[in-house]
Amino acid sequence: MSTILITGGTVVNATGTAQADVLVDGEAIAAVLAPGSQLLGVDLARTVDRVIDASGRLVIPGGIDAHTHMELPFGGTNASDTFETGTRAAAWGGTTSIIDFAVQRYGERVEDGLAAWHAKAAGNCAVDYGFHQIIGGVDEFSLKAMDSLIDEGITSFKLFMAYPGVFYSDDAQILKAMQKSAETGLLTMMHAENGPAIDVLAEQLYSAGKTGPYWHGIARAWQLEEEATHRAIMIADVTGAPLYVVHVSAQQAVAQIAAARDRGRNVFGETCPQYLYLSLEDQLGARSEEWGDFEGAKWVCSTPLRSRAEGHQDAMWQGLRTNDLQMVSTDHCPFCMKEQKELGRGDFRAIPNGIGSIEHRMDLLYQGVVTGRLTPPRWVEITSTTPARMFGLYGRKGVLQPGADADIVIYDPNGHTSIGVGEGRSHHMAMDHSAWEGFEVDGHVDQVLSRGAVIVDERGYHGAKGHGRFLKRDLSQYLI
Amino acid sequence: MSTILITGGTVVNATGTAQADVLVDGEAIAAVLAPGSQLLGVDLARTVDRVIDASGRLVIPGGIDAHTHMELPFGGTNASDTFETGTRAAAWGGTTSIIDFAVQRYGERVEDGLAAWHAKAAGNCAVDYGFHQIIGGVDEFSLKAMDSLIDEGITSFKLFMAYPGVFYSDDAQILKAMQKSAETGLLTMMHAENGPAIDVLAEQLYSAGKTGPYWHGIARAWQLEEEATHRAIMIADVTGAPLYVVHVSAQQAVAQIAAARDRGRNVFGETCPQYLYLSLEDQLGARSEEWGDFEGAKWVCSTPLRSRAEGHQDAMWQGLRTNDLQMVSTDHCPFCMKEQKELGRGDFRAIPNGIGSIEHRMDLLYQGVVTGRLTPPRWVEITSTTPARMFGLYGRKGVLQPGADADIVIYDPNGHTSIGVGEGRSHHMAMDHSAWEGFEVDGHVDQVLSRGAVIVDERGYHGAKGHGRFLKRDLSQYLI
Amino acid sequence: MSTILITGGTVVNATGTAQADVLVDGEAIAAVLAPGSQLLGVDLARTVDRVIDASGRLVIPGGIDAHTHMELPFGGTNASDTFETGTRAAAWGGTTSIIDFAVQRYGERVEDGLAAWHAKAAGNCAVDYGFHQIIGGVDEFSLKAMDSLIDEGITSFKLFMAYPGVFYSDDAQILKAMQKSAETGLLTMMHAENGPAIDVLAEQLYSAGKTGPYWHGIARAWQLEEEATHRAIMIADVTGAPLYVVHVSAQQAVAQIAAARDRGRNVFGETCPQYLYLSLEDQLGARSEEWGDFEGAKWVCSTPLRSRAEGHQDAMWQGLRTNDLQMVSTDHCPFCMKEQKELGRGDFRAIPNGIGSIEHRMDLLYQGVVTGRLTPPRWVEITSTTPARMFGLYGRKGVLQPGADADIVIYDPNGHTSIGVGEGRSHHMAMDHSAWEGFEVDGHVDQVLSRGAVIVDERGYHGAKGHGRFLKRDLSQYLI
Amino acid sequence: MSTILITGGTVVNATGTAQADVLVDGEAIAAVLAPGSQLLGVDLARTVDRVIDASGRLVIPGGIDAHTHMELPFGGTNASDTFETGTRAAAWGGTTSIIDFAVQRYGERVEDGLAAWHAKAAGNCAVDYGFHQIIGGVDEFSLKAMDSLIDEGITSFKLFMAYPGVFYSDDAQILKAMQKSAETGLLTMMHAENGPAIDVLAEQLYSAGKTGPYWHGIARAWQLEEEATHRAIMIADVTGAPLYVVHVSAQQAVAQIAAARDRGRNVFGETCPQYLYLSLEDQLGARSEEWGDFEGAKWVCSTPLRSRAEGHQDAMWQGLRTNDLQMVSTDHCPFCMKEQKELGRGDFRAIPNGIGSIEHRMDLLYQGVVTGRLTPPRWVEITSTTPARMFGLYGRKGVLQPGADADIVIYDPNGHTSIGVGEGRSHHMAMDHSAWEGFEVDGHVDQVLSRGAVIVDERGYHGAKGHGRFLKRDLSQYLI
Repeated sequence: MSTILITGGTVVNATGTAQADVLVDGEAIAAVLAPGSQLLGVDLARTVDRVIDASGRLVIPGGIDAHTHMELPFGGTNASDTFETGTRAAAWGGTTSIIDFAVQRYGERVEDGLAAWHAKAAGNCAVDYGFHQIIGGVDEFSLKAMDSLIDEGITSFKLFMAYPGVFYSDDAQILKAMQKSAETGLLTMMHAENGPAIDVLAEQLYSAGKTGPYWHGIARAWQLEEEATHRAIMIADVTGAPLYVVHVSAQQAVAQIAAARDRGRNVFGETCPQYLYLSLEDQLGARSEEWGDFEGAKWVCSTPLRSRAEGHQDAMWQGLRTNDLQMVSTDHCPFCMKEQKELGRGDFRAIPNGIGSIEHRMDLLYQGVVTGRLTPPRWVEITSTTPARMFGLYGRKGVLQPGADADIVIYDPNGHTSIGVGEGRSHHMAMDHSAWEGFEVDGHVDQVLSRGAVIVDERGYHGAKGHGRFLKRDLSQYLI
Repeated sequence: MSTILITGGTVVNATGTAQADVLVDGEAIAAVLAPGSQLLGVDLARTVDRVIDASGRLVIPGGIDAHTHMELPFGGTNASDTFETGTRAAAWGGTTSIIDFAVQRYGERVEDGLAAWHAKAAGNCAVDYGFHQIIGGVDEFSLKAMDSLIDEGITSFKLFMAYPGVFYSDDAQILKAMQKSAETGLLTMMHAENGPAIDVLAEQLYSAGKTGPYWHGIARAWQLEEEATHRAIMIADVTGAPLYVVHVSAQQAVAQIAAARDRGRNVFGETCPQYLYLSLEDQLGARSEEWGDFEGAKWVCSTPLRSRAEGHQDAMWQGLRTNDLQMVSTDHCPFCMKEQKELGRGDFRAIPNGIGSIEHRMDLLYQGVVTGRLTPPRWVEITSTTPARMFGLYGRKGVLQPGADADIVIYDPNGHTSIGVGEGRSHHMAMDHSAWEGFEVDGHVDQVLSRGAVIVDERGYHGAKGHGRFLKRDLSQYLI
Repeated sequence: MSTILITGGTVVNATGTAQADVLVDGEAIAAVLAPGSQLLGVDLARTVDRVIDASGRLVIPGGIDAHTHMELPFGGTNASDTFETGTRAAAWGGTTSIIDFAVQRYGERVEDGLAAWHAKAAGNCAVDYGFHQIIGGVDEFSLKAMDSLIDEGITSFKLFMAYPGVFYSDDAQILKAMQKSAETGLLTMMHAENGPAIDVLAEQLYSAGKTGPYWHGIARAWQLEEEATHRAIMIADVTGAPLYVVHVSAQQAVAQIAAARDRGRNVFGETCPQYLYLSLEDQLGARSEEWGDFEGAKWVCSTPLRSRAEGHQDAMWQGLRTNDLQMVSTDHCPFCMKEQKELGRGDFRAIPNGIGSIEHRMDLLYQGVVTGRLTPPRWVEITSTTPARMFGLYGRKGVLQPGADADIVIYDPNGHTSIGVGEGRSHHMAMDHSAWEGFEVDGHVDQVLSRGAVIVDERGYHGAKGHGRFLKRDLSQYLI
Repeated sequence: MSTILITGGTVVNATGTAQADVLVDGEAIAAVLAPGSQLLGVDLARTVDRVIDASGRLVIPGGIDAHTHMELPFGGTNASDTFETGTRAAAWGGTTSIIDFAVQRYGERVEDGLAAWHAKAAGNCAVDYGFHQIIGGVDEFSLKAMDSLIDEGITSFKLFMAYPGVFYSDDAQILKAMQKSAETGLLTMMHAENGPAIDVLAEQLYSAGKTGPYWHGIARAWQLEEEATHRAIMIADVTGAPLYVVHVSAQQAVAQIAAARDRGRNVFGETCPQYLYLSLEDQLGARSEEWGDFEGAKWVCSTPLRSRAEGHQDAMWQGLRTNDLQMVSTDHCPFCMKEQKELGRGDFRAIPNGIGSIEHRMDLLYQGVVTGRLTPPRWVEITSTTPARMFGLYGRKGVLQPGADADIVIYDPNGHTSIGVGEGRSHHMAMDHSAWEGFEVDGHVDQVLSRGAVIVDERGYHGAKGHGRFLKRDLSQYLI
């Protein structure tokens, strides 16, 4: 086991910054020290195996992306990133932990779903990984199986108010699962969109000849996200369950979350980079030479991109400022255009839902610092510290403190990153396009440590398939 | 300069806890280390001058009380604690920094007011101290003087919407001072009560023969706190000034702050222990053998204690949970009953306003942990980390990290504290009574370090008058 | 055709009162005149067939009860009032129009349901009657049938978010029916309770041995009324449908309606006398010598009686003041204790839901005038004028103006009414008990005219089965 | 005394319409009758002195403009309409009652102010008139004088939170006056703008060389209207006074009123035609060949015209729909450009504040009917019925019912009105310009009756100076 001293940098934690050195011993942080590499007369720089000079750069806890879908079967195909390719792309982007979703469906055993996901991930990951459990079929068996999840290190599960016939739970099922959440401490995660209503609208649009990607966004009206968000909050209120709403994109949904939080409820919300930057008008409605009016398919995801004219994007940024949205995940669920997104040509309902962003989350959010929307500590909080606290990883992850895993990113605030698959750009996700093509952003991930191993530096990627370990998570440390 | 190693404790910072040792070198924290007293083969416990065993105890950043009034001239008398007695009591109670208020009044120079307060404090304090500046007379001279405050390390100033003829500013003055706040970054602190309206009600009650302490609370109706809070928020909105509302006690005022925060405004609120525990019914209306119907004078402060039946106390606790109230100060402003509070016998308007709590804030708030209202990290956040960030001390104070001042409290969660001046109790404030007489609370301040010096331990107080230094503060680090 | 002059009374309309005489010619009001029985030199009192002296009394438009369920099949039995007995009781109580609900269920034709209700009512009613249409099974056939309803004089239809398997519509069905509402102008009425969630809670309570009537109120938690109310509002928002929420009982549901109205939406709410006066604690939890712990069954209705400690009753009164609730209907759905309510002994879920109040609505609401909660014009507005406007009867009903049907009540504000089936009381509903037993109220219905015929006076009931005619209603006249 | 029968028209009252004839006998309405001119066999058309054929037209209660300032001394000049010219213009426009403001200032006796206004108006008015009392100097004398106002038929008084040094009351004065309001039933009217803050901003703009009319609107920021509105509401809450906010123009002020109303408070708001149609951008910022950058002075009024981009105008319309704004007055306060508005060239603060609209209110609001924003009954309600109820005139005014004054307008919905002083237009106000120049609106005032006298018809104006009588008003009939 080697020792590393990171010197001269600005350590950024969630409440503020400090000029400090970080001493890594093996897989963990051994100490955070006053700068100067001296301690009680010992010259640490001479003692350690390796010194990393972080002068002029930010030293931050590695990013945690708490919402990814590697290899997810969806819409007749599979998300294009495997655990291998997806976690490698994560590493490139400064994300050193992911939490993916194991899937259970109607008629399936939860244990089997979880085992299947363990099988997909084990030995393949570049960085550490955990699982949430999707409960796609709430019944007496799955409810009973939930009792064992905490012992498995799975302390959160996800329900869907959308996708009838696939993952959808009705309100009776949601109530029962939330009672289990309140009883056990499992955190309820919710895809909050009124699926039955959306499917009616989508069918009507399709029947009216409105078949392109743009109509995906119209069918999934903000009212139906706001409604489902409120409904989830009220059923949580009846049961006492803590609630985490995934991929919030409508400003009115944020307002519902804010109102519940003002009443002191354990209600939380995440948004994603796409809801901060992209829009119904600009992306879903896009046309191109190559793809014609199907270009927008690249950005078909659910919840959908929303209208900039209505102000949703600004509302997401504001939600991050007001802490009515506590964190940012990617909902990374990549599909290629060829043979995947193409399945929905002529019928937007058949376009696989998902955008790939795992590689760019840290950089994209850093733009919030550049534009003054976020402070550096808040950037760390929403990308790492709160994800760790929310999902029971804090202490090990999400903070630079002794005893924590040495998941560390050296970030250059004066660097630059060119995103995209185009010429002269780099992109490591298994996709034939990038949702972020052409984004030129300030800031650059210079070095990445995962449990003490330098897996990315100026010379490239040094990680290894299988380095990443499964994270048994504790109960949420964010609840009040 | 000596070195101290604090071993075996649970370090509590604002985002979570860690098992870690803390190494103090001179006045500052040199390192936070993985437990075990070993670093790269060095046995630290043998190397340092002193080892403090914190096993089973919490190691927290020293408390910061951002609202005190030592020796304040008010109502024809002076607050009974000097900087000497008051800061010593603070030390006993685990508070290692205070921010007091220098006073400027109509016709006085700001510079003179500040100099006078420096003169009172210099050489007398047991712990570090800073100043806010009261601007009791906004005019062209005081506005100009505000330009220099930041250089003096005074980065916040306070206005009063109450006390016409004493500290009161009208809305034109508030607007001008807030423009200065927006321009310079000085944080505007506001006593938000509609003084002119209150004075009418108070005069009417007095004239109707309602002269006892209870009527103090009736005259200062919650509507008039809510109103002034909203007014301050809106003038801040016009000017762009950041706003910090002091001693919030009405639930409707919290709601106004929450609404402003939901809109993304830099609006903050503090509450005080008395608004969490004490009430109009129980304290202001108290009678006793010794004091008859004047007993309630002990708890005459402004804003006043409010009705428990109306739910204000619960709302303050909830505000701390929801972060619509960000921190807790004491508004420590002690007056003895004899010769001081007595001035208002027969006319509640003449009772000096103030309660003394500086010694008990950390213990009283720890009860929030005991009762499950607060997590330990949130306790540290509202008593130390946020005060530091709010008022530009973070990095030096408010966090246990390398480079920070070694202001450290070893807190025993299994200890017990008996509050009061009664037999068998202890109390170090210069008061002839305690507003908290008879409170038996869980938790105990075992040891207190101020800039590396152990000033309180099991053997008693070891501090020294003059140890405490003036804190030149930076601009607020809490703004978004 | 005879002529009647009502002299000396105070005519009360929705916007104010007037000293005026009312001249009835045949079935209609011919004129409203300045008092004194003179017009252009003609002494009207000598000219007319009959003079009614209304001195000292209020002359008001006959009450309109827009929510009744005569002979409703429910829970394995039928509501105990027939159209004959129910409308006669209505007449006794000053209600001269009712709007009942024709029922369509899954697999049934709307036309057949409507025809069945016509058959029940025709030739049997004492006062005029109209129908709303319950759409208990939204499918392509019922949606198509809705197109014809307006021609039939049925301009409103009702959906249920409660009662899965009976009347329940899911959100897809609600969306489709509301689209029809927006397209045609039919007013959507909604039973807003989350039935699937309630049924889970009810089953759990029952399984836990909580089988008595009280638990009916616990299972139907206010959160699930609030939730459904909000959901209905949002689906209405998506479709543009006007929405009328029936039998609102939770203060939080009123708040949702108020919020929608503040945004300018066509969202309306009715409450019922039981939600103004009765409570979970006092009635649902009642025990008696005769019925033991089953006494509460008398007040089992849905939405349920709610907790007085939580303030719902006061909130209903306030909603009537603020016009966030626009009107009061009874939801008259009477069941006897014997052989009907008794079906639910040992299982509250089997108690037929309903309370009988049609006879007492005008008197009970007049208590709002007595206690100062309502002005006399507001009393008339919420019991007659708004029901007429809301449901397309205004002009004919709901106002004393020329051309209107002569549906007139002479109400004695100094009279007294003893309600109940007990000795010395009177009660004309076909029930073996009264939900209002023992209510002693100020005010008395002295005389009742239905389309010019005096059907109730001091000598008793003079009405006739079959006098009441079917009311073909226009579209709502209340929409903005 | 003559008799008039108005036949064939559609009578519009606040709750709905009716086909009915109206019989006028002398100054009052004798009856409202079923159409056909027959009553108990008498052919009324042959009996009366005059028959007015209202076929195809609306028969409405005469308009009531509850906010006018004839001959008001302001800014060193007088409003240009005398009671003679102003009430004549009112008559032309279908307004048959006005309520003007008698003025008391600091150091003046209320009685003298009232007497002075009686002297100005007596013998000069074309239509009936009443007074509100401005209390420009709240002190012990004016408070005492308020006790007598009700006997004088003055049942409302107005305070100003703006105009320090002129009409301004501070919060202590407002509290005292509102206590009087609560005690006596006098309705408190409030000019709700934070004058002290506005004056600071105005002075700063002026000093910065921003001297034109546009800056008038910038200085009077919406935040300062919202703030004052909320403050007035809260002081009213403390005292129990009913509150009527005049000339509301900011959407956020409407939101404050709505929130108070949702809580059941007696809080009311009026807006004015200028806030519905005109804007900061279009009018205050206007330039012209004749007036250069001073053109905007025509529309300098307070509260100011607000930004259309911010949505205030739409919010006013919505407030009228939701009844959060209950009525529309003009705040008629005309000044000519020459020698009056011109006083403020080079300093917007010196431009006399006011717009003249008394002649056009009925027509301008009728456009709300044309565009579907208002129903005809709502048009009548906000222009006549509610003003009557709000200010204690209902029964005599504001409704077409027997016993009411025969103040009647025959309005042609198919007519057309060209507004302005330009060629081919007509305008009867004593102004050298029109704020509404060029407005072409649907609808036309065909005939106007004032207390039974036809004062306007197709042949022109037939009124007489002195026909209008002083209206002793009752207490408000709108309170709940």
